[in-house]
Amino acid sequence: MIICRTRAELKLALSNLREHNKSIGFVPTMGFLHEGHASLLRQAKEENDVIVLSIFVNPLQFGPNEDLDRYPRDEQRDLALAEENGTTLVFLPSVQEMYPQKPLTSVIVNQVTDRLCGATRPGHFDGVGTVVSKLFHLVNPDRAYFGMKDAQQVAVIEQMVSDLNFDVKVVACPIVREPDGLALSSRNVYLTPEQREQAVVLSRTLRLAAEWKEERGMTAERLEAKVKEALNAAGEAVIDYVELLRYPSLQPPEAAAELHTFAEPLILALAVKFGATRLIDNHILQATEVHSNVQNDDEIQASPGNRNGSELELCR
Amino acid sequence: MIICRTRAELKLALSNLREHNKSIGFVPTMGFLHEGHASLLRQAKEENDVIVLSIFVNPLQFGPNEDLDRYPRDEQRDLALAEENGTTLVFLPSVQEMYPQKPLTSVIVNQVTDRLCGATRPGHFDGVGTVVSKLFHLVNPDRAYFGMKDAQQVAVIEQMVSDLNFDVKVVACPIVREPDGLALSSRNVYLTPEQREQAVVLSRTLRLAAEWKEERGMTAERLEAKVKEALNAAGEAVIDYVELLRYPSLQPPEAAAELHTFAEPLILALAVKFGATRLIDNHILQATEVHSNVQNDDEIQASPGNRNGSELELCR
Repeated sequence: MIICRTRAELKLALSNLREHNKSIGFVPTMGFLHEGHASLLRQAKEENDVIVLSIFVNPLQFGPNEDLDRYPRDEQRDLALAEENGTTLVFLPSVQEMYPQKPLTSVIVNQVTDRLCGATRPGHFDGVGTVVSKLFHLVNPDRAYFGMKDAQQVAVIEQMVSDLNFDVKVVACPIVREPDGLALSSRNVYLTPEQREQAVVLSRTLRLAAEWKEERGMTAERLEAKVKEALNAAGEAVIDYVELLRYPSLQPPEAAAELHTFAEPLILALAVKFGATRLIDNHILQATEVHSNVQNDDEIQASPGNRNGSELELCR
Repeated sequence: MIICRTRAELKLALSNLREHNKSIGFVPTMGFLHEGHASLLRQAKEENDVIVLSIFVNPLQFGPNEDLDRYPRDEQRDLALAEENGTTLVFLPSVQEMYPQKPLTSVIVNQVTDRLCGATRPGHFDGVGTVVSKLFHLVNPDRAYFGMKDAQQVAVIEQMVSDLNFDVKVVACPIVREPDGLALSSRNVYLTPEQREQAVVLSRTLRLAAEWKEERGMTAERLEAKVKEALNAAGEAVIDYVELLRYPSLQPPEAAAELHTFAEPLILALAVKFGATRLIDNHILQATEVHSNVQNDDEIQASPGNRNGSELELCR
């Protein structure tokens, strides 16, 4: 496994790896890797000759009061996980290497970023769009892999790639969960045992909501209210947002629309704080008759031995 | 010469041309080509195996009261000029092909766009950054050629390429002028004979300013005032801006600084309206001791027979 810390090293290594028209699968991450990232690497491995992983905690996508400084890091463990999962090259740049001067250029995606984390984390997706553009230019991948846990990030990047004609296929991969349903996240390590136990309320409520959606008379507003009620039953949960939106446009459905008659895919997205730790989760609620371009709606449980297709578990 | 009107045609043609690691030189234009564009094509031809020209009048970079609808077009003449100057492939997309949906993504360069045309044409450089990003992704060139007549555009694109790590070398090419000094522009066709005669005041004043800059006690403010006075001597000239700035940062020099002692390159940039026709011109004023990364400060006169290096004329 090749490790590159500078853009120059990366360029040289990639020009060697690119020979004979080899395809490159790219997994951009902020490190502190878990089974969710491993699933991206494995899917990339299935579809490409060369797997590039980047690990970069991007300051541009953290707000002034966010957890940039305490964002968890463990380079040795990350490298071991990368190697175990067939990574060809790891790009581990410093902040100085990625931003040698104060950057004056931003890649800004509008509309798709108005709600959810875009509303509560102003500037976050400008930072994401900018750093992903930089990484795409540095790596020049054929395919790039993102987890559906950050569904809005996937929607933003798909919009950016389409609008700017990036020559890369964005592959959205299913959410990986703990056996009790908690979506894997590098931030889960912050949770106290009590918070960890309560945090299961996110995935449990998403599963229930998929049933509630089918009830007669259920509108977006009513569903959001029921979800908030269920989340508030967890004593330490402080709701940041609960939103039901069209996917991938992330625009609200008509207020009066009955959800069980809705012909487009919808996303139910949650952000909930436990103490200082903010967790997100979501579920794509497919229309009964599927007229959708959303792939990978299935979700994977991160228990041992579930790694072949026949054992995939649906979260719904 | 290959002509492509769709992204799909372009992609296919480029994948064939790219074989055997051929280098691609790219000249993005809005068409109505003149000797200035031809000089970019010829320089591209000297430095690359394959020359790609794009012709696209980009609506995104025109303001609501600007000349999008009356921007001059002449496809047959453009194709003839392209062929004469060794172009391999012309990309001629429709607006629908470049913007099949309303674009939600913008590439925005700050600071370098605060002044000059950025101040008087709000949104202009957002449109430029966005379309040039799209074209770079579609063409994936090794080198891209831009004329120094739009010096701010060159500075904006160099900043964008550096900030976003585009893998392309930006080549800034000298301004090409009519025998009397008028910088070539697609918009020159709008001028009445009387305006055309008066328009020579731009280049004449730039030449004079290079001498005034060396005078003792000359500051930016004093130079700008002298330039405005000289321009106003042309009866139909209405000044849009006259600015002396550092190049390529496009930030103002200290107000009290004597220009002849200034160690950085400076740009004197003008925008002047003759009736509804807005002309721009500029000149890079080098420090006496050259500590500069600005290339191609020489300017070329567009008279017949001046196309080899030994006959280059300096505009100063």
